[in-house]
Amino acid sequence: MEAREVTDTSRVRNKAFLSKIMSAEQAAELVPNGAIVGFSGFVGSGCPLLVPPKLAERAKRLHAAGQDFKISILSGASTDPNVDGVLAEAEAVAFRTPFFTDKNLRAAVNSGKTGYMDVHLSSLAGQVEAGFFGKMDCAIIEVTGITEEGKLIPSTSIGNNPLWLKLADKIILEVNTIQPPELEGIHDVALLGIAPNRKPIGINRVSDRIGSPYMDVDPNKVVAVVLTESGDRVNKFNPPDPVSTAIGDHVVAFLKQEEAAGRLPKGRLLPLQSGIGNVANAVLAGLARAGYRGLECYTEVIQDGLLYLIRDGVVDMASTATISLSPDAVAEFRRDVAFYSKHIILRPQEFSNNPEVIRRIGVIGMNGMLEADIYGNVNSTHIMGTGMMNGIGGSGDFARNGYISIFLTGSTAKNGAISSIVPFAAHIDHTEHDTMVVVTEYGFADLRGKCPRDRARAMIAIAHPDYRPMLQDYFDRACAQPKPGQTPHILSEALSWHDRYVKTGTMKP
Amino acid sequence: MEAREVTDTSRVRNKAFLSKIMSAEQAAELVPNGAIVGFSGFVGSGCPLLVPPKLAERAKRLHAAGQDFKISILSGASTDPNVDGVLAEAEAVAFRTPFFTDKNLRAAVNSGKTGYMDVHLSSLAGQVEAGFFGKMDCAIIEVTGITEEGKLIPSTSIGNNPLWLKLADKIILEVNTIQPPELEGIHDVALLGIAPNRKPIGINRVSDRIGSPYMDVDPNKVVAVVLTESGDRVNKFNPPDPVSTAIGDHVVAFLKQEEAAGRLPKGRLLPLQSGIGNVANAVLAGLARAGYRGLECYTEVIQDGLLYLIRDGVVDMASTATISLSPDAVAEFRRDVAFYSKHIILRPQEFSNNPEVIRRIGVIGMNGMLEADIYGNVNSTHIMGTGMMNGIGGSGDFARNGYISIFLTGSTAKNGAISSIVPFAAHIDHTEHDTMVVVTEYGFADLRGKCPRDRARAMIAIAHPDYRPMLQDYFDRACAQPKPGQTPHILSEALSWHDRYVKTGTMKP
Repeated sequence: MEAREVTDTSRVRNKAFLSKIMSAEQAAELVPNGAIVGFSGFVGSGCPLLVPPKLAERAKRLHAAGQDFKISILSGASTDPNVDGVLAEAEAVAFRTPFFTDKNLRAAVNSGKTGYMDVHLSSLAGQVEAGFFGKMDCAIIEVTGITEEGKLIPSTSIGNNPLWLKLADKIILEVNTIQPPELEGIHDVALLGIAPNRKPIGINRVSDRIGSPYMDVDPNKVVAVVLTESGDRVNKFNPPDPVSTAIGDHVVAFLKQEEAAGRLPKGRLLPLQSGIGNVANAVLAGLARAGYRGLECYTEVIQDGLLYLIRDGVVDMASTATISLSPDAVAEFRRDVAFYSKHIILRPQEFSNNPEVIRRIGVIGMNGMLEADIYGNVNSTHIMGTGMMNGIGGSGDFARNGYISIFLTGSTAKNGAISSIVPFAAHIDHTEHDTMVVVTEYGFADLRGKCPRDRARAMIAIAHPDYRPMLQDYFDRACAQPKPGQTPHILSEALSWHDRYVKTGTMKP
Repeated sequence: MEAREVTDTSRVRNKAFLSKIMSAEQAAELVPNGAIVGFSGFVGSGCPLLVPPKLAERAKRLHAAGQDFKISILSGASTDPNVDGVLAEAEAVAFRTPFFTDKNLRAAVNSGKTGYMDVHLSSLAGQVEAGFFGKMDCAIIEVTGITEEGKLIPSTSIGNNPLWLKLADKIILEVNTIQPPELEGIHDVALLGIAPNRKPIGINRVSDRIGSPYMDVDPNKVVAVVLTESGDRVNKFNPPDPVSTAIGDHVVAFLKQEEAAGRLPKGRLLPLQSGIGNVANAVLAGLARAGYRGLECYTEVIQDGLLYLIRDGVVDMASTATISLSPDAVAEFRRDVAFYSKHIILRPQEFSNNPEVIRRIGVIGMNGMLEADIYGNVNSTHIMGTGMMNGIGGSGDFARNGYISIFLTGSTAKNGAISSIVPFAAHIDHTEHDTMVVVTEYGFADLRGKCPRDRARAMIAIAHPDYRPMLQDYFDRACAQPKPGQTPHILSEALSWHDRYVKTGTMKP
């Protein structure tokens, strides 16, 4: 459903905000050129969808008139085509952080027109509050209502909104009437703050709440309230393909092995984090098939698959940064919001991805990747080492701090022209120190407690059979050099697979 | 002073341990072939120095007789030539983790004879307790005494000793009578445990204590007590050279800039961590010259420089993993142990390097490195991408979690044949996401809030003038490619500087 302006003011329960109601077009006029703007939005959920397109229209008009208009976008995570997409298309994005998925913005970033900085999702708020990104001028935040007391009811994600509301000089609120009013109470809002004023975070179990269901805002800073009706734009959920299913089965086999060895609590595991998309869904489906019940998740996103596991009792409690559901799953969620509200906590990303909490409760982190090298260094972001895909998101938060850190990928991409296991990762987002287990459809490589040579043997064994002999040959020749070292490499060949792909369209010789 | 066996039993205050006193040679017989052995020792301090040489002699005898004898060494951090050195020379080290500096061991590691795994110093204990390294058979731990109650008084480092004592089946204690008895009480011993039983860590300020001055041990597991007299082997302290002094001055200039901008508390900064060696000492000296008083350190090592800053009031409180002093500084420490004990806390490395605490109290992390690339990816460990130097140590703990993360290096090595700023780091220990500031003798590159292209410009500006045009040329040509991407690189040239050095002895063409 396309977003549209509405006139229903029933969600604005504090009357002082009624006088600030205006159109999206009027609100878009309030954002100055050069502004640093904090947006709501995390995995496409909870984004303001009306003001950004008007801002993009305004930018185009100004550009046509020979005037500058660009802003910096600081978000939660990825937003929506109606945020990143329209603004990138209007050439109105000077700078972007911390994560995106939009293809227009990707083109702007990879051409160098838009400066993009890739930041751990847990870390951005603290760095912004410390002043490392400059003064935040505006915040454009979707909420689902304003209480009688003037508190804000968050939407399907909280992201960095509590901090954006604190720091921004001017605040534009989009009050979205389409989200179920029963979302009120599901959120656990708090601010982490920065040193020297930080305190221990009181989350000792997935279900612990430390904050309030509402976000605070200084009403004097609110310059506009826009009334909208806009569903989150979430793609339909695809059933797992054979590769994803095999990966999911290998993950389950690994977890069963750990249980059997006494290295994980039997039948309950530890809190799970799983990334986004087909592979993550296949892993969750594998856990359900394996008969697990009463699991916990401390994760970033609840997609359809996880929602159904909650319904079925496979997952008892899920802490998340966002709820990102397809229309069918939204219907299911609405069917029994009261039930789901007891099993779901929505947190700001400072907390959903917090290293202190992830370490304490012992999260099993499972993330996708683009490629890993034979020693377990992982590239999550850069296609052929140069082209930005989406950013690291929260993968580093979980990989570094997880009790067990698992990376998942199909063994090839582009119909076999790209091997996901390479001699040397062309960009490194997660180092060998933070990679414990790598899983492809050919099995899992357990890198824990292993030196690089033993890691290489384990990694080569899960590569695609077409590439295994090539990897083995590289590794053997690297080891046979006069001074092989701790991590044997042939420097003149280390990046040759990527170079070959760029020049010939395949990593195969 | 060479370590030697003594007969003075006055430090063994619990009489039950007296019956376990034996010679180092006898104790060395108790370690089985293939054992996983936990050693004490951190930056050469607090190592057992008598049993390991006897173990090495035994290994040589067995090898000469055609028998196998190898062990795995799990330590705190680097030990002493009488630990890693003698055992590596005897070809008795099958596996080593997490950090070392010994040249014999380095040769064994880089030839592939000894498997070495490079692990964050904060993380090893948890991974071992979780069972990722197998069952610990023995622990060989230096202590400075055994109390009436049978508790152990730690030595000049605690390392991972509390956990090794908990996990090992057999324990050999070296009771070192040369360390001042006044060390008793300076330690803050605790165990972090693993999920799901972890709790928040109650360290909210550098001076907070959460544990006991003593380590627990099950007396039934103690199979040997060896009485020794052995000073820590610490090299003389060198005055800073011009390059180190310039780096220190640039660090101070950066910190002053941050104070002036309101991004650091005025005159007090935040707790400092600084690495080991000349550059770290030069930074501390620069802070003293700049007139700072009452600073705090949350760091891994107290070397001579930091001890004198405590004496002079520049540093008021220092939490550390080890005290590693030259003979002159040991004399100064003993001159007024009562004073120093009020200003120093010695912690296990699970706590001295703990990410939760580092984030909470906002540590300013300052670490050396081998090289960084123009985008701020840092290589701390691998010479020319293959040869292991020492390991990452705690650099990752502080770089990822610090309020500000600073890397320090002279702009060149090997008389200018190696540039410390390169197109593409030949090994990556700290990714672009964790590098905020890089300092050479030519200035500081502030990478915070910057996209890769802007980071490259800042990094090239602090490279050695001989290499600046080469870096600029690489960067310009990379950006001029048809598809430059987020992080422009020329894949066929990215590692060519390292390859050239290996082949010609210089990175210069």
